[in-house]
Amino acid sequence: MKTSGVAERVLGGDVRAAARLMRDLDDGMPPARRALQELFPRTGRAYVIGLTGAPGAGKSSLTDRLIGHYRAAGRTVGVVAIDPTSPFSGGAILGDRIRMQDHALDPGVFIRSMATRGNLGGLSRGTSDVVQVMDAMGKDVILVETVGVGQDEIEVAQLAHTVVVVSVPGLGDDVQAIKAGVLEIADVFAVNKADREGADRTVRDLAMMLELRKSAATREVLEHDEAHRLRRTSPVDPHEAGFWEPPIVKTVAVRDEGVGELVEAIGRHRAHLDATGERRAREVARSRAGFLALLREQLLAGALSRLAAEKGTLESLAARIAAREADPYALAEELANRLRG
Amino acid sequence: MKTSGVAERVLGGDVRAAARLMRDLDDGMPPARRALQELFPRTGRAYVIGLTGAPGAGKSSLTDRLIGHYRAAGRTVGVVAIDPTSPFSGGAILGDRIRMQDHALDPGVFIRSMATRGNLGGLSRGTSDVVQVMDAMGKDVILVETVGVGQDEIEVAQLAHTVVVVSVPGLGDDVQAIKAGVLEIADVFAVNKADREGADRTVRDLAMMLELRKSAATREVLEHDEAHRLRRTSPVDPHEAGFWEPPIVKTVAVRDEGVGELVEAIGRHRAHLDATGERRAREVARSRAGFLALLREQLLAGALSRLAAEKGTLESLAARIAAREADPYALAEELANRLRG
Repeated sequence: MKTSGVAERVLGGDVRAAARLMRDLDDGMPPARRALQELFPRTGRAYVIGLTGAPGAGKSSLTDRLIGHYRAAGRTVGVVAIDPTSPFSGGAILGDRIRMQDHALDPGVFIRSMATRGNLGGLSRGTSDVVQVMDAMGKDVILVETVGVGQDEIEVAQLAHTVVVVSVPGLGDDVQAIKAGVLEIADVFAVNKADREGADRTVRDLAMMLELRKSAATREVLEHDEAHRLRRTSPVDPHEAGFWEPPIVKTVAVRDEGVGELVEAIGRHRAHLDATGERRAREVARSRAGFLALLREQLLAGALSRLAAEKGTLESLAARIAAREADPYALAEELANRLRG
Repeated sequence: MKTSGVAERVLGGDVRAAARLMRDLDDGMPPARRALQELFPRTGRAYVIGLTGAPGAGKSSLTDRLIGHYRAAGRTVGVVAIDPTSPFSGGAILGDRIRMQDHALDPGVFIRSMATRGNLGGLSRGTSDVVQVMDAMGKDVILVETVGVGQDEIEVAQLAHTVVVVSVPGLGDDVQAIKAGVLEIADVFAVNKADREGADRTVRDLAMMLELRKSAATREVLEHDEAHRLRRTSPVDPHEAGFWEPPIVKTVAVRDEGVGELVEAIGRHRAHLDATGERRAREVARSRAGFLALLREQLLAGALSRLAAEKGTLESLAARIAAREADPYALAEELANRLRG
């Protein structure tokens, strides 16, 4: 396939072309989709790191410091901030100012905030598009920052090679309970704001939960866990060679403390993925999720176009469904039947 | 359409049949889908209340108290708990015990926790299915409890007639910033744990944000806001007759304080929706979202069945995509083209 001018420019690292392409993708412009398709064979080289955690855990400050460390090591960096409360996304109105602007003038850093969500595809489609553009631009490391609750985070886990779960001391038991959900997606734990009282307790709690998980894994209880199912194809055996025990790293992002250790822990996880072949498995899982999101979006667009031609606008159809005059099940089935092999 | 035995039993209020149907829907059993389709014309009568808020805000205790109040008023109640950290969902491992079991023996209360998410449809599909079954069972009020961050919450807002956003004093500025995102979906604010220090400040902060929003609405700045777009078809004019100003109610759920006032505020919002015709508009929005979720799920199932027949399993396809040997864009487009009118 001949590449269009846009794809050429993005592959050449053109920042304006990349930013424009991301905007056009957001707006669902067909030429942008074609450019993304042209970029696709040239992607798959970037290392994608997800950062997730409760609001207030300091993910943005940590992201900021990670950029600094990777830049100092000569790596180029892409950042996707999809936390709706992140200062990058303009979502914080009472939050503190972030120092990330320091990097705004560095040509080795490309920052994109995802304040809005796509109409049809939700979060994951847009995020994976942006990651793909940054990958094609030649960014060595891509940091994806997301707030740590709900479906978003599982989708980000599918996108990332290494998932860093950011905790913080003193958020209380209820919040700690969230970790039960994120435990399965964490490759590295960062306990940020570790100069606060209770940091050691948070570390102990996490270590305890990891220990519980290990025993559970031995009993293969986790076999049915969803996050687990998404990421691994066989039950975990903690005694097998190459079992990864997520390290717990204490950081104080605002003072740049422990961030080198965090970078080092991420590097060890990367080496682990390479050594065990799990990096390839994650690439396959990521391709699977990306393809499904794309398929969902394209199918829906195709179906809505047919519906508009045959049954009227979605709005009028929704009004008839609300009045129980139209049967949404029959309509959906009729359309889906055209696809079946 | 002749109704099957399952649908008949659910319409008759059979708890076992309803629970079984919900499980079968979760498992994606085709006969369960047909039963749901049969129930559809008999739904649309229940009043759906969404409760959302940060972890630790005490949503479960508040839900518990609301059940008590609605039961005392002679209403039957359905509860859907989709908070992964909720004790109902079995997600809390360090969390406190919940008293909800009090209602487990009351035949007027039906509680369903959503600890797992569907394979294809994500959260919203499963939730709206469960709400629909409870609606068909004849439940007067359905409470949907979800943790207050991310996409889930916007989907719940689309499902509910009244959205109660639960805040709590003293979670700090970072967490307060979340409220910027939920402001647009809140119909009523509950400041729970209002016996704690800082409750008045939380009330003042919320009132201030509502005031800011009102000014913004006057300038029609919110016109482009997504949640806004999802819920309203025209820009908000705070001076128009029937503009709803979300009341702020202080509660102490564990002591059952302020819960009567909360029930009363929800009742006023319901009367407002009926008086302005917005209830119908919300039903249409809900039907639209439900239909789209259903369509997405059905289309994907149809497409995967065709893919399996023509191109091999999804796993093998994902491996070829990961190796950049297959083009996901071309595949998705080819399938979507079969749908276009």
